[in-house]
Amino acid sequence: MPVVVQNIERADPAIIERLGRAGVATVHESQGRSGLMRANMRPIQQDVAIAGSAVTISAAPGDNWMIHVAIEQLKAGDVLVLAPTSPCDMGYFGDLLATSAMARGCRTLIIDAGVRDTRDLRRMGFSVWSTAVSAQGTVKETLGSVNVPIVCAGALVNPGDIIVADDDGVCVVPRAEAETVMAAAQKRLDAEEAKRLRLEAGELGLDIYDMRGRLAEKGLKYV
Amino acid sequence: MPVVVQNIERADPAIIERLGRAGVATVHESQGRSGLMRANMRPIQQDVAIAGSAVTISAAPGDNWMIHVAIEQLKAGDVLVLAPTSPCDMGYFGDLLATSAMARGCRTLIIDAGVRDTRDLRRMGFSVWSTAVSAQGTVKETLGSVNVPIVCAGALVNPGDIIVADDDGVCVVPRAEAETVMAAAQKRLDAEEAKRLRLEAGELGLDIYDMRGRLAEKGLKYV
Amino acid sequence: MPVVVQNIERADPAIIERLGRAGVATVHESQGRSGLMRANMRPIQQDVAIAGSAVTISAAPGDNWMIHVAIEQLKAGDVLVLAPTSPCDMGYFGDLLATSAMARGCRTLIIDAGVRDTRDLRRMGFSVWSTAVSAQGTVKETLGSVNVPIVCAGALVNPGDIIVADDDGVCVVPRAEAETVMAAAQKRLDAEEAKRLRLEAGELGLDIYDMRGRLAEKGLKYV
Amino acid sequence: MPVVVQNIERADPAIIERLGRAGVATVHESQGRSGLMRANMRPIQQDVAIAGSAVTISAAPGDNWMIHVAIEQLKAGDVLVLAPTSPCDMGYFGDLLATSAMARGCRTLIIDAGVRDTRDLRRMGFSVWSTAVSAQGTVKETLGSVNVPIVCAGALVNPGDIIVADDDGVCVVPRAEAETVMAAAQKRLDAEEAKRLRLEAGELGLDIYDMRGRLAEKGLKYV
Amino acid sequence: MPVVVQNIERADPAIIERLGRAGVATVHESQGRSGLMRANMRPIQQDVAIAGSAVTISAAPGDNWMIHVAIEQLKAGDVLVLAPTSPCDMGYFGDLLATSAMARGCRTLIIDAGVRDTRDLRRMGFSVWSTAVSAQGTVKETLGSVNVPIVCAGALVNPGDIIVADDDGVCVVPRAEAETVMAAAQKRLDAEEAKRLRLEAGELGLDIYDMRGRLAEKGLKYV
Amino acid sequence: MPVVVQNIERADPAIIERLGRAGVATVHESQGRSGLMRANMRPIQQDVAIAGSAVTISAAPGDNWMIHVAIEQLKAGDVLVLAPTSPCDMGYFGDLLATSAMARGCRTLIIDAGVRDTRDLRRMGFSVWSTAVSAQGTVKETLGSVNVPIVCAGALVNPGDIIVADDDGVCVVPRAEAETVMAAAQKRLDAEEAKRLRLEAGELGLDIYDMRGRLAEKGLKYV
Repeated sequence: MPVVVQNIERADPAIIERLGRAGVATVHESQGRSGLMRANMRPIQQDVAIAGSAVTISAAPGDNWMIHVAIEQLKAGDVLVLAPTSPCDMGYFGDLLATSAMARGCRTLIIDAGVRDTRDLRRMGFSVWSTAVSAQGTVKETLGSVNVPIVCAGALVNPGDIIVADDDGVCVVPRAEAETVMAAAQKRLDAEEAKRLRLEAGELGLDIYDMRGRLAEKGLKYV
Repeated sequence: MPVVVQNIERADPAIIERLGRAGVATVHESQGRSGLMRANMRPIQQDVAIAGSAVTISAAPGDNWMIHVAIEQLKAGDVLVLAPTSPCDMGYFGDLLATSAMARGCRTLIIDAGVRDTRDLRRMGFSVWSTAVSAQGTVKETLGSVNVPIVCAGALVNPGDIIVADDDGVCVVPRAEAETVMAAAQKRLDAEEAKRLRLEAGELGLDIYDMRGRLAEKGLKYV
Repeated sequence: MPVVVQNIERADPAIIERLGRAGVATVHESQGRSGLMRANMRPIQQDVAIAGSAVTISAAPGDNWMIHVAIEQLKAGDVLVLAPTSPCDMGYFGDLLATSAMARGCRTLIIDAGVRDTRDLRRMGFSVWSTAVSAQGTVKETLGSVNVPIVCAGALVNPGDIIVADDDGVCVVPRAEAETVMAAAQKRLDAEEAKRLRLEAGELGLDIYDMRGRLAEKGLKYV
Repeated sequence: MPVVVQNIERADPAIIERLGRAGVATVHESQGRSGLMRANMRPIQQDVAIAGSAVTISAAPGDNWMIHVAIEQLKAGDVLVLAPTSPCDMGYFGDLLATSAMARGCRTLIIDAGVRDTRDLRRMGFSVWSTAVSAQGTVKETLGSVNVPIVCAGALVNPGDIIVADDDGVCVVPRAEAETVMAAAQKRLDAEEAKRLRLEAGELGLDIYDMRGRLAEKGLKYV
Repeated sequence: MPVVVQNIERADPAIIERLGRAGVATVHESQGRSGLMRANMRPIQQDVAIAGSAVTISAAPGDNWMIHVAIEQLKAGDVLVLAPTSPCDMGYFGDLLATSAMARGCRTLIIDAGVRDTRDLRRMGFSVWSTAVSAQGTVKETLGSVNVPIVCAGALVNPGDIIVADDDGVCVVPRAEAETVMAAAQKRLDAEEAKRLRLEAGELGLDIYDMRGRLAEKGLKYV
Repeated sequence: MPVVVQNIERADPAIIERLGRAGVATVHESQGRSGLMRANMRPIQQDVAIAGSAVTISAAPGDNWMIHVAIEQLKAGDVLVLAPTSPCDMGYFGDLLATSAMARGCRTLIIDAGVRDTRDLRRMGFSVWSTAVSAQGTVKETLGSVNVPIVCAGALVNPGDIIVADDDGVCVVPRAEAETVMAAAQKRLDAEEAKRLRLEAGELGLDIYDMRGRLAEKGLKYV
């Protein structure tokens, strides 16, 4: 039943922006280690971190028709998230589609498939996390859906969920939990900052975290 | 029957240069989506695009003897293309061979196997697309052939074919079709440029390509 | 039998430094093509070359407790080398552990598993060769050992062995053989320098290595 | 928030049994090509086809504690479906757990991780589809959940969904759609039977499906 | 340029049958170690060996339309060989197509993609070598070609070439070389039979092949 | 330094035989979860379990010369264990070498590379665990060593160590620890037998292992 859901709810932009600054590793820890995409979801650029609201696409393998449909649904700050209905490493997306998405205020694609024109995409400042790079083009024959729940690289994504992505990978934060997760993330960041100073000064994790007793008790021997 | 074919025909340098500027994705589309190497053929450098005439090498697994033989056959603008006769990820090629190839005017290697000294190669401006990086050296015991047809990363390469390579991968253009393909590529590039301007201005692909009717007819619902 | 070996012997820093400059490919050749880690052990940074003394960690899959224990054993110039006791691509190591290791003078990790905070690690100048990048965190429940022999990415590593790593991969030099290997490496480097000049000048490997006779004898035909 | 949902609804056993006989390929087609697990989910036995109600397990990587918890929730005809919260190929399940599951009437495990004692499992008639076989054991340290929605090998599984598995792979049918899917599957099976007889008699698909006109119109040439 | 070549030449059935009995390893050796498909081309059945004439199919990824076209071109003893124009693991072929192929006297498929209904195919005695098993179906939208040269799993296949397949994999013998290869294969088989008897009697390869001198000369030490 | 160590010590045949009957999973647990080869080391036959003394081979990639040398060193009950010095999936071993090994009383090969003639090997009752199946033959040009320590599929193997292999994989028991490990294995087997009876009778692991308290304490909720 191919469908386009036109009005989706998005999280507060201020929260989204803070989740992006916290980064994937911290956000993933802060929501109980859930929502992480598989490790073969890799960036085509280096040292870029983003966060945004997911506009989801469920597409047939080798068919990028629904991306055109999805672009009409984009608002500034959105992130396109595409999962094919069966594994596919073809190049669904290139510089023309990126031009169109950027005209709507979207600067990121997360795709469990391939992209092409990667040099142009980097030059344009359009960031991509994908599971493949391939010049192989797609067709426009089969309908899919936009803004339905999808499973992308092993993670469930609902439209409007927050996508956090950086060099470590991609993590999905359910929209309803964005504030709670951000609060937990902030606590971690504050605690980490304090620890970083002590570690820099040469203190050992063994002492800061008081591990020596438990190590001895479990039977660790020093020789 | 190990053989070295000494005089091969090459395409017109002007056409080769234009194919290189068109890029892998456009060239691949322009010849009916054929000739693309597998997606695990990856560059060791970023943001480099090349095109040149193939000097082909069929080599035994783990044996790089024939590269020395092939270098004597190189002319300025040639691209070395090596396929082992069975899968192998050893490091067939490093900075000394690159020095020798560059002295003959060749600046690129396409290899369905491994390379080494990758930092030096980048520093020298010698570009490589390979399926592996490995410090593991090879031997010089078994003959192979130079300038015979080979299958490299899934694509058939005849000596003198045009190799186009960039961040998206590697595509092979049969020599006899170079002009036809370039003509088709130019048409695509011109059409793309016009579309890019319209997309940048915010027009939608849905409208530019007149997709709404066909989407409705196939049954897409907006909710 | 979890154990921490506290006093290990290290090789002469001058030899270690020279092995690092020789690079992985040369060192690997110079010790009879042994000690190379598998090719999926890849750097998270580009154009960095290091050498140092191995402090080894045998850890349970998904458990990074022993890294804290190992950091106390570090001396300036050491390299942490971790192998999980079964395959695991989780993120064992991030910026806090790197901060702690750097406070002890260690600037490199070699890990047959995942790391996270890779952008921060690059920014800090902490270099990593790993078989995965993953934001997925680990636990601290199961003991392992520090400074025992381990098999890391297919190579046997004894504590105090010299680790040489660059863009080509990672090679292990047994401590007792460091000087012999370096002597052999120096010979290679000197010979290579002479060959490089001749190759740059356009001489062919076929002539420098006197290969034409043997090629003809084996039956190579020129047509 | 680790939780065990104790009372889940299951589909009508008669429908489940019929879905199992229809087989994965037919069921997958009949529900619009959705719900298929990734192709690396492979059986440890050959020529076995099953169907049953999913009892789902979300487990930490390398931790099989929750399987013991899940077994208490099993009813006759259930299928255990386990997804680790990050990729893991360790052996979560062996002959003792299978003995316990069989005592509750469960004869199948679907696991996006490893199993062990595979010879014993085959001998016992306990069928398994897994993404790995490994003797590597797990620990019992971290809580997970039972009968919550999980993503297993790329497919969303809700507790009580129908699992259909055979040599072609594993497909998930949402409980609420079981009857509709079975009706569609029956239609396909009936149509296929008629076609099979005509094909066996030597009629061509080209004629049965009336393809010749469309092929000619698209430009297929016979030479 | 989609095309169906209708009349292809085939090799002598007696030679084909003998190549099949010689087996993949012997045939591959006997033609100079060429023509072997990649090792991920695996049988769905065990202990079956075949040989036949290739009817080749070049198909779009995820599109099995051309198989219907190819079946009309089959003669008794033919083998269908399909390569998608880009990598694809979808299930192109199942029991209905096999029924149709068998009605034309073809009992084997070699496919660099996926198949489904594998249990039925085994039951019907239709043998398959494929690079994937997948229930995921394909479409019938894009033309391809039949009986043109293709690259399948890394090997070049011309229509009418002889396909030899067994548990070791798949090898392609160019039609024009069938007799020469079979003559060489027969010599190997005869020589192997003599060696087998001596080895069974306890003689060592070291002595039969007179290796001791060369081993000593190369520097092998016994301690 | 290529070397053949001629006289190696082997463990007591009675212990070896008992380790084989205990099986890989039990033996691996009984020696502290060490010594397991990687999970891609798979049997070419099903439902076979073996144990024997390792005769080790370190071989160049694509070179099987040393197998001939190793066969002379075999005694009844030995297992050949081969690791190439760099990754290689070529077919090192076939029916002729198996005939020769069987004449010396060896019926098993463990190889981190490929084998061929697999149908013949199964028919002969020669069992193999390998990381590949390939018809691609090897050469006899480069020396290696016999009965030296090797790393095979990630596990360290010393000559004379006990190899235990079954459908779950391959585990290495250091010779000196054979009796201790067997004693621990026997304890596990006895304990498992008792548990199996209770589980068969319907008792739950939750009760047998007294897990309910700890689960509650860690925070597991039943809803």
